[in-house]
Amino acid sequence: MLAIEKNRASQIQNIKSKRIEKVSVDELFDGISKGQYPELAKGITLIESTRPEDFEMANLLLTKCLSIQNSSLRIGITGVPGVGKSTFIESFGSYLTKMGKKVAVLAVDPTSSISKGSILGDKTRMEALVKDPNAFVRPSPAGDSLGGVSRKTRESIVLCEAAGFEIILIETVGVGQSETLVHSMVDFFLLLKLAGAGDELQGIKRGIIEMADAIIINKADGDNVKKAKLAKTEFARALHLYPPKENGWIPTVLMVSSIESSGLNDVWSLLKKFFEESEGNGHLSKNRFEQNRKWFEQNLENELKFRFFKNPHLQKDIAETLLKIEKNEVSPFHSAKLLVKKFLK
Amino acid sequence: MLAIEKNRASQIQNIKSKRIEKVSVDELFDGISKGQYPELAKGITLIESTRPEDFEMANLLLTKCLSIQNSSLRIGITGVPGVGKSTFIESFGSYLTKMGKKVAVLAVDPTSSISKGSILGDKTRMEALVKDPNAFVRPSPAGDSLGGVSRKTRESIVLCEAAGFEIILIETVGVGQSETLVHSMVDFFLLLKLAGAGDELQGIKRGIIEMADAIIINKADGDNVKKAKLAKTEFARALHLYPPKENGWIPTVLMVSSIESSGLNDVWSLLKKFFEESEGNGHLSKNRFEQNRKWFEQNLENELKFRFFKNPHLQKDIAETLLKIEKNEVSPFHSAKLLVKKFLK
Repeated sequence: MLAIEKNRASQIQNIKSKRIEKVSVDELFDGISKGQYPELAKGITLIESTRPEDFEMANLLLTKCLSIQNSSLRIGITGVPGVGKSTFIESFGSYLTKMGKKVAVLAVDPTSSISKGSILGDKTRMEALVKDPNAFVRPSPAGDSLGGVSRKTRESIVLCEAAGFEIILIETVGVGQSETLVHSMVDFFLLLKLAGAGDELQGIKRGIIEMADAIIINKADGDNVKKAKLAKTEFARALHLYPPKENGWIPTVLMVSSIESSGLNDVWSLLKKFFEESEGNGHLSKNRFEQNRKWFEQNLENELKFRFFKNPHLQKDIAETLLKIEKNEVSPFHSAKLLVKKFLK
Repeated sequence: MLAIEKNRASQIQNIKSKRIEKVSVDELFDGISKGQYPELAKGITLIESTRPEDFEMANLLLTKCLSIQNSSLRIGITGVPGVGKSTFIESFGSYLTKMGKKVAVLAVDPTSSISKGSILGDKTRMEALVKDPNAFVRPSPAGDSLGGVSRKTRESIVLCEAAGFEIILIETVGVGQSETLVHSMVDFFLLLKLAGAGDELQGIKRGIIEMADAIIINKADGDNVKKAKLAKTEFARALHLYPPKENGWIPTVLMVSSIESSGLNDVWSLLKKFFEESEGNGHLSKNRFEQNRKWFEQNLENELKFRFFKNPHLQKDIAETLLKIEKNEVSPFHSAKLLVKKFLK
């Protein structure tokens, strides 16, 4: 980080800290439970804080919010850069708020950082939603690790639900592990695609298509309509090749023009169908419990591994073992066992 | 387990134990390094033993074998039951031994157990290979967990390589997690399919096609040839839809008749091409080091989690936490952190 960026980062942290210190957890919770935006924003800032002294307050606020958490529809939205995610969220979000729905937009963006300016960047890309009294837009939190960023997003969902938001849209960029993380915190996973020439599935990370509950061909307008229809057919065929999902849901391909605001009815109908079905057969709550359980187990693993790898007495052993493993001198199984034994002694 | 099966299992364990006790690690290692089959078989039995008193000997033998481990081609073979894996291995294995290659066949079969008789079952299905002086066939080890079974198989590879086997075929049934485990211990992953009517990719677990380095349409003989050709085209198209693999390898579809022994030349040519390419560009050794590292990390995780979950002082807390997580009363993150803190105190 350059000095000027560091300076800016520390300024931002200072402003955030001051904002938090002014209010108590009770005040924050009171505001959030009444659906007040400033308190919700401050609460999320508290959750996102990396200062150890904020952790306890954050956990207290979280536990309070969990107690009044409303049910919402959590929808993940992914797609490669340039596919028009922000424009889609802007127009679909506005479509929902016009129906009287309260919509929160969160983001898990591993490429985001203060120096790149996306803290404000995201917001300005969704001008209408930002001004919409029924919408709450929160850019991606800054974080050292993707796991950290997604964890903060996962906890922000709880705060948004406590504030009465009925639909949570979680945006992610289609790179690396972020989709898997977003997929593990949502009920429904949308993949946005453009109608292109030729190999429609190229450029998408392995496994993403399999996670999608629906594929949306975006920018299906003007000269693109014909190409979009072809893409729709090709994707429908590709989806057909996969075995059915555990919950019985059959992924669907839709066409949307975010600019012409067409196709949004279809998206909403599909979502309603999904939520009616999966609430009816119990898969929604089953899925959420399993997600929570997985987050718990994963965090358990991470925490155990973190403590193990940062243990000062093990540094030399770990480095030596890895070298021996690389040279094929020791079994990866036995050496792991030995090191854990030493760790827990 | 029925009493009679239990009895049989304990008899088998007794016979195995006696067999092991008769020889020392040095004797075993000496025999293995000379490529002697009885010592190799006994060594693997030692590796597979679940008696804690055998662990140290097993590790000693393993470390010795690692020191003289030859390079081999490790090939994973998967496909749903009935696709003809054993017949394919029998005919491809014989094809290889006729070329003078030494071939070992191992299995990771989560459905295998003593009561189902597959310890002998596998062997009798490969009559020619079992009698072949250049082949060594080892059925799936019995085990409580798939992870345990695959770990034993992973270590058996080391022993087979120390005994001079040049090609290791690892068979797995296309159900559950076993392919992922086999994929993580081989250089090349083969998916066997039958030419069927209609949806060729149906019935295969999500993700398996993405792991395949080649798909083989088996039983491409007699009336099946036409259907096999159609299947080949459909699979080739499906593979084309995936982004390229990290090592640059482009998965291929081949047709084989294990009964008519046709297509085996093509399979061997493809494998040679793969190994020449990936040895040339360094991906083979890179992949193996990464696999070892992953096995190490995974075993580290497993061991840490195992110790955590069986800790007698945590049983009550874990049960209570899971209940609270299910009811959405606590954050999965904070509760994991708290429990780990208690564990390491």
